[in-house]
Amino acid sequence: MPLPPHDPDYAQRTRESFAGQPAMATLGVSVAEVAPGRVVLAMAHRAELTQQHGFVHAGMLAAALDSACGYAAYTLMAAGAGVLTIEFKINLLAPARGPLLRFEAEVTKAGRTISVVDGRAFQHESGRDERKLVATMTATIMTVTGRDDVRH
Amino acid sequence: MPLPPHDPDYAQRTRESFAGQPAMATLGVSVAEVAPGRVVLAMAHRAELTQQHGFVHAGMLAAALDSACGYAAYTLMAAGAGVLTIEFKINLLAPARGPLLRFEAEVTKAGRTISVVDGRAFQHESGRDERKLVATMTATIMTVTGRDDVRH
Amino acid sequence: MPLPPHDPDYAQRTRESFAGQPAMATLGVSVAEVAPGRVVLAMAHRAELTQQHGFVHAGMLAAALDSACGYAAYTLMAAGAGVLTIEFKINLLAPARGPLLRFEAEVTKAGRTISVVDGRAFQHESGRDERKLVATMTATIMTVTGRDDVRH
Amino acid sequence: MPLPPHDPDYAQRTRESFAGQPAMATLGVSVAEVAPGRVVLAMAHRAELTQQHGFVHAGMLAAALDSACGYAAYTLMAAGAGVLTIEFKINLLAPARGPLLRFEAEVTKAGRTISVVDGRAFQHESGRDERKLVATMTATIMTVTGRDDVRH
Repeated sequence: MPLPPHDPDYAQRTRESFAGQPAMATLGVSVAEVAPGRVVLAMAHRAELTQQHGFVHAGMLAAALDSACGYAAYTLMAAGAGVLTIEFKINLLAPARGPLLRFEAEVTKAGRTISVVDGRAFQHESGRDERKLVATMTATIMTVTGRDDVRH
Repeated sequence: MPLPPHDPDYAQRTRESFAGQPAMATLGVSVAEVAPGRVVLAMAHRAELTQQHGFVHAGMLAAALDSACGYAAYTLMAAGAGVLTIEFKINLLAPARGPLLRFEAEVTKAGRTISVVDGRAFQHESGRDERKLVATMTATIMTVTGRDDVRH
Repeated sequence: MPLPPHDPDYAQRTRESFAGQPAMATLGVSVAEVAPGRVVLAMAHRAELTQQHGFVHAGMLAAALDSACGYAAYTLMAAGAGVLTIEFKINLLAPARGPLLRFEAEVTKAGRTISVVDGRAFQHESGRDERKLVATMTATIMTVTGRDDVRH
Repeated sequence: MPLPPHDPDYAQRTRESFAGQPAMATLGVSVAEVAPGRVVLAMAHRAELTQQHGFVHAGMLAAALDSACGYAAYTLMAAGAGVLTIEFKINLLAPARGPLLRFEAEVTKAGRTISVVDGRAFQHESGRDERKLVATMTATIMTVTGRDDVRH
């Protein structure tokens, strides 16, 4: 079955849904870019996000990458659809020292029910091109339609 | 090669390292139980941890489960060793409504370098036995020794 | 929405579908047990299944565990439904020397569309109770209904 | 700590180790390309590799992708090192109809002990450029040195 027709308001819809996630405000995550099938989020290293060695906690990286992946899939969904993470896997490649972190997610496969999204977390300094890959994620995302809640 | 001899101070060492994770304080996560090869953490549903439907964000569940898994492995490590999450995978099974969440992690295999830990997140009400499984995690944890940093 | 009513012919249906997988015959995998939400498969170590050190190849373990997980979910599906693996993750814990291997899968969550199944691979000797855990898997399985093919 | 110096004989060493995997011969998998940090394997759709719908079994795809990922990491290891898959995760994106399948793996991060490799499986027809992505994998690979066996 084909994908639903593209929603011309995908960017506004995505930014509004993201703004409705208090967890992202708690982590200081903001939207850097929204395109069809692609979302980039940004976060700064802050002490309250760290683990016992002063690096950003793997779980905090996972939270930001999960949101990036879910919203990348959401950009391709029809208006009125809901987005649900079924599962994700993250590999931690290097300590996340910051000072800035960037979470880039792109849809690898958009399906009618199931989408697969790959995400990458980079650390970099302000105003510099050089950056380092600190984590990769693959997330399986479900499109939820026609139900009042989001149970699967 | 055999595992290092058991550290009799594992519980205190684990609680101290956990206390050194500001990220866990930010999420309101506390230690409920420490035993050899097993750690249980607890968290309450709070608005600042939620996603757009009012449930605890998958990433916040992942952060707490990751800490539970890492510290479950840490209980079996020698004094002086460091703990590092290489990767984890989480499946989200039901919306995390709370009001209370419990994260139980048990070591499935303790290796000299690599340990595998399985974790489960449950939601329940205060003082009630009934509970619901909301997420499962498998984490691959590395024992770091003899190096000043925690790069792998 | 509730799960469909239990199919009384689940065991025969499961065994018949399994018999229709030539890949399992190629690997020498047979059905050891079928129960609601649980399937156990068995395989013997053979030279043509091994990697460069003489142990059973991780991919061969994954193939057998994937079938065990998929069919464990299938036992709980309605007659006429199809089963599809969306994704799985496997951790390899010890070299699979055999001589016998047993793959046990149990449904952790049966959903209307998505089920999550956990599997474990053990090696043991014939007629002995002692056994060793060699691999663990978590698989996400989709129920496919009302479509002629199995695309998702 | 830096990576060991590059082994000039990496390609021959990789092909020889691959040739020592009887499991790959059983599946009809051959080496298509070996480069530093990159290995491509090939396989043809055959009836004995299929599941109940006539597509290549997810486990068979996983076995070929796992070998591709492991050997991609192996190309960057020092002579004498051994390669061990710690874990992998695979997402199945489309039915693998063939007639030809190609498994491309590239090292995302080469570490002293742990490497992370991403792999993709494509199906295509002989002599045609058009191809379809059918599966993606992320594998965590361990470098084993100085031990007679490959236990971790």
